[in-house]
Formats: sequence, structure tokens, C-alpha cells
Amino acid sequence: MKATERLHSWGRRGGSLLAAAGALFMAGNAAAYDWQTLPEEAPSPEDNPTTEEKVELGKKLFFDPRYSATGTVSCNTCHNVMEGGDDGRPTSMGVHGKTGPRNAPTVWNSAFHASQFWDGRAATLEEQAKGPVLAEVEMGVEALEVALERVASIPGYRDMFKEAFADDEEPVSVENAAKAVAAFERTLITPNSPYDRYVQGDTDALTEQQVRGMKTFNEVGCTSCHSGPNFSGNQLKQEKGEGVYQKFPAFSDNEYVEKYHLTDDKGRAKATGDEADAHMYKVPTLRNVALTAPYFHNGLVETLPEAVRVMAKTQLNRDLTEQQVADIVAFLEGLTGEFPEMTMPRLPSKSGESIVPATAADEYEGDGGGH
Amino acid sequence: MKATERLHSWGRRGGSLLAAAGALFMAGNAAAYDWQTLPEEAPSPEDNPTTEEKVELGKKLFFDPRYSATGTVSCNTCHNVMEGGDDGRPTSMGVHGKTGPRNAPTVWNSAFHASQFWDGRAATLEEQAKGPVLAEVEMGVEALEVALERVASIPGYRDMFKEAFADDEEPVSVENAAKAVAAFERTLITPNSPYDRYVQGDTDALTEQQVRGMKTFNEVGCTSCHSGPNFSGNQLKQEKGEGVYQKFPAFSDNEYVEKYHLTDDKGRAKATGDEADAHMYKVPTLRNVALTAPYFHNGLVETLPEAVRVMAKTQLNRDLTEQQVADIVAFLEGLTGEFPEMTMPRLPSKSGESIVPATAADEYEGDGGGH
Repeated sequence: MKATERLHSWGRRGGSLLAAAGALFMAGNAAAYDWQTLPEEAPSPEDNPTTEEKVELGKKLFFDPRYSATGTVSCNTCHNVMEGGDDGRPTSMGVHGKTGPRNAPTVWNSAFHASQFWDGRAATLEEQAKGPVLAEVEMGVEALEVALERVASIPGYRDMFKEAFADDEEPVSVENAAKAVAAFERTLITPNSPYDRYVQGDTDALTEQQVRGMKTFNEVGCTSCHSGPNFSGNQLKQEKGEGVYQKFPAFSDNEYVEKYHLTDDKGRAKATGDEADAHMYKVPTLRNVALTAPYFHNGLVETLPEAVRVMAKTQLNRDLTEQQVADIVAFLEGLTGEFPEMTMPRLPSKSGESIVPATAADEYEGDGGGH
Repeated sequence: MKATERLHSWGRRGGSLLAAAGALFMAGNAAAYDWQTLPEEAPSPEDNPTTEEKVELGKKLFFDPRYSATGTVSCNTCHNVMEGGDDGRPTSMGVHGKTGPRNAPTVWNSAFHASQFWDGRAATLEEQAKGPVLAEVEMGVEALEVALERVASIPGYRDMFKEAFADDEEPVSVENAAKAVAAFERTLITPNSPYDRYVQGDTDALTEQQVRGMKTFNEVGCTSCHSGPNFSGNQLKQEKGEGVYQKFPAFSDNEYVEKYHLTDDKGRAKATGDEADAHMYKVPTLRNVALTAPYFHNGLVETLPEAVRVMAKTQLNRDLTEQQVADIVAFLEGLTGEFPEMTMPRLPSKSGESIVPATAADEYEGDGGGH
């Protein structure tokens, strides 16, 4: 049976075929399942409506490494939008070669989460944006004001803040910098994946194996958490600050827990101080998951097939067949969306002077080589 | 006297006003000087003609940090084309937070140099491109083949190599990767600076102070080295591998030599092993120099005015007045060109697996925080 026929037979069996975005759709032989497509735009909060000026400023700030402690680490260093929105590392490497303890989540479609970070400790993108600037193992600045001071010393940036936040008495502020970065991040959406096109009625968009994987994904229970347009639970319908959390691992009686150190990190309990939140994590999106290896909060699982095996066992207590694993992986590959074409930002400069702190000449130790 | 009048009076005094690009032009009251504009295209070598396919591949490789030892350092890390083509640091920071001993030269207009690196140890951009991949303090890969293997494991990259080097039996090679990066770098040209427009006859393109600075720049002797379209000597007319070298400092009897450690680095002698090359350096371009602070091979001079003072004293044994310094700086700001609008590259991925080496689970030490 070809994918096309299969789809139509489900459609008929379940009722009428709705080809519109977000339609109620059939992927199982038996139960209907509400497969949803990704919105092409993310809603913006009342106190930070998305504007072109903010997006443009936020994009520059996102790509600018100069306000990190060493002048080498930008938001994009760990959340590389030129690829999967992450860094391909188990855990990220920030200033001075220091590494953090958790895997960088993708920035793509992060606008659709109801909370940010693995433990959901930031309610909004605005709030999240400030964290890494200060984190010793990320951008490593001693105070947000230090980063802002560098940015504010550049006339081009000052002008952009004034334009983007024209009604503010003090347009150049930490709050506005975070708002601009968040506004830019709200544009990082990858619609029209093969999955989305399939759900919208393009029955050739997924292969036969992918359709089989889609069905298995639902039948074995992955959709009990990875549901909704962003495959991250009902976070799109939640108030910011809520978030959908699950215990990981839910089932501990398996080889993976020790092998991949799955209980070393206390998860959300570290953020809330509440022991009831131990090992709770926000349900991450599965959009573009084929591009964001390695996997899980500690990045210790190297491949997507292994990630599927681990999830099935630790969360659903199921041993999948290799065929099921391969089918689900094929389906997940169908969640890779269309990345918007972006213009490279031009970062404004301070004429004749760098905003990155200089090495004092009396600390200088170089004697040749390199550049 | 306004800039316009001044210009015309020089023009008349020196002969006829030639408004064409690269025209013989007058900037001194007395002597004619051959002010030249920047070509809009860089010639490509016979064995690596520039093609769209190579440029596109080279651009991706230039921005891809994943083939560095840590997966965090790309060509663009130290040669940030979103800004001045450098990193704003005294000396660059590569993998593991290690720092090199020399300041990153700008990649903008590097195609017009007859040799690469501060000491000219690479004849071509193709040869240069391989150096930083291996340098322990830059991208830190143990062998070029290791970097290539990672790139070659990505189907999208393999396809692009085949397209860009269709006639090659083995299109995916270190040599071709270097050729692609060099082809991309040959597109990094910033024409139409205020200076260029002025030389082409737009007499309003420079301010009165800038015109005065241009004249002073010539009169005090800066043009004896910083000449030609790229203000780097006659390198555009040289065979690749030649290069224009000067001793720095030429005059040592001044405070700057000790203050800025100007003789710590043996310069070109380190590359050639020839003591006659001690403290010799390639004459760097002054194009976009206002964007590339801090200055000189060790990056110890923080501002452009101070760099002008140091140069005048160490190279010409002249003490400039503060007015002369300010005028020359104003002129140098007029060398900031037009940066071409660029599309952000999309880096191809290996599905469900990162090409950055993973941390073995038994080396894992994380326990929360960070992302």
C-alpha cells in the first residue's frame, strides 16, 4: 500500500479528510489523533510586540560575541541558527573553554514554549535571554550592566535602541536588549516540514516508512507527551511560566539510567528547590530533532535511534523492535522544517577602538606564531 | 576653504582632474600622488577560478565551527565578517580558551595581498586557509584529514564538493576545501568607501578634515608603505608569495618600543629562519582600519589615534601634532568601505548524529545549571 492510499484510507476510516492546517487527522488504524501543524508566526507578549526594528536589533545582539567576557561567545555560538539552533556538543562550551552541564536546546521554535531552559526556570524568552550572558560557563560577564555598557558605547547600537524603543525614556537598557533578542527569536520558526505538508493533505510529503513511523509514534505512546504543533505538549496554549514537565527517567529499572547518567541531574528541583520536582524536565520540541544531536539534558546519547530506544524504555517501559525504531526515526526526520533565508547582520562598530577589553601590555606574553 | 574648493584647486594645480577609478590624483599642495581606488573584484588564480558553487561551499566552510577540535571555532570566530573581519581582541582566542600570540588580521580585502599572515608565510589564500585549522591555539585539529572526515560525513557537504569540483576524481579533499574557502574570501571586498568616491570625483564624500588628513597622510610619509588601492604597498601587482615587508619598529629610540613590546616578536624571521627578516612584517591594509582595533601584530595598541602616533614615531621618526593625528584618523575612517549584503549560510547536517566528537559517558561530570 502506498503512503497516499494509506493516508486516504485512514482519513476515510476516521471520518472526513480535513486538509487544513491543524486539522484533526488520522495516523493510527484505530484511534484518531489530532496531528497539528506549526503556526508560521509566534504570538508576542503585550509588553513586547514584535516590530521590524526590534527584530533587526535583536538579530545583531544575538550574533554579537563582543559583549561576552572574552569577546568570543555570542548567543549564536551555542544556538547556531545556521544549523539546528544548537551547537552539536554534548554540553556547550562558553568563555575560556569552560563547559556547562546541560545540552544547548535549539532556539528554533523556542517561541512556542511556555517556559525556557531544560528546567523551565525562565517564563519567557525575554527572561531567558539574560541568563547566558551572566553564566560563568557561557558568556561569563560579571553583570548585565557591563555587557550593556559595551553595547551602549557603540553609536550604531544606541541609534537602533532609540529607533526600536522610541517611546522609552531610556531606550538603551538591559530590559530592552532582552526584548529585542526575544523579538528576533520569535521569528525563528520552521514551518512546512514534510510532516506539516502531509498533515495539510500533501500525501507524498512523507515516505511510506515515515507514515508507518508516525503511526507507531502515536501507538506506542510518544504523543502522550510530545503532542501539539511543536511536539512539546500543550505549551502553545499555556500561559507563559507554566510549561509541560515530565519525570525523566520515569522508569528506572533499565540499563540506560546508569549508562547515560540519567539521574545525576536533579532537573527542575534545582530551579524550584522542591524535591517533588526532582528529575522533572520540560518536554522539549521534536521539531528539527534530526539536526540537534547529541540528545537529552546531558547530551550523552549520541544518535537519534538510540534516543528513541532510551525514551521508549525510560518513559514508556517499552522495548521497541529495530524496525519500529527505524520507522520512528524516519518520521522524526520528517519534522525538519523550512528554515527562513536570513541576511547576515552587520554589527555596528566603535570607530578606532574595540569594545572587547584589551590585554594590558604588562600582561602580554606572546612571541610569535598563530596569525 | 571648503573641501570641494580645496580639491578642485589641487586638481587644477596638479594638472587635469581625472575622475575615473584609479586616477592619478592630487592630495598634496605640492606633489601629485597616485591615489587609487579598490577594485570591485579580486583576480582568482589559474588553478582555482572563482565559481558560484565554490563560493557557496567556501562560505559554509568558513562559518562552520564543527570541524574544529571542540566544535566551537570557525574561520569567522576570529575573522568576523559581520564586523571588521577580525575579532576585536588583542590576540585571538581559539579552542579550549587558548590564546594565540598575534592579532587576527582582517579577512576583508585579504584577496589583494601577495602573501598571507603577518609574516607572509603563506603565499596564497588557499595555503593560508589550512593553517588555523591545525593551529593548537586556533581550531586545534590534529590533522587536516580529521577535519575533512567530519565534513565528508555530511551528505550535503559531499554533494556540494561534487558540484563545485565536478572534474575532480576525488572532489572531497583538503585541497578543494581550501580552494572553496579561498574562493569565498575573494568575494570579501569593500569598495566605494568615502575615500574611493572622493578619488572618483565625488568631492563631498570626504569632510574637510578628512581631506586635510589625506594630505597629511601623504606628506608625513605614510604612503611610502601604505600605498596602492589596498594601502598595503604594491601587493596587487606582485606575484603571489612575494609581499611587501617592512621592519617594525624601524626607529627604536622611543618610548613606544618598550611600552608596547614591539620587539618581543621576531616577525618574519620566525617563518624564514633568516635573521635578516627579524621584525619584518607584511604591510597590512588600512582598508576598514577604524573597525579593526586593537592594533599591530600583538594587538597591544588600543586605539587608532595611538596607532597613528606609534607608526609616525617608530616608522618615520616623526612626532605628529594632535591636530595631525586627528586629521589622519579622520581620513582613515574614510577608508571604511561598503560591505556586501550576505545571506546567512545554512550548514548541512548529518541526520540524527553530530559531527562534533561526543563526550564519553564515563567522562561526564555535569550535574545541573547552565542551559
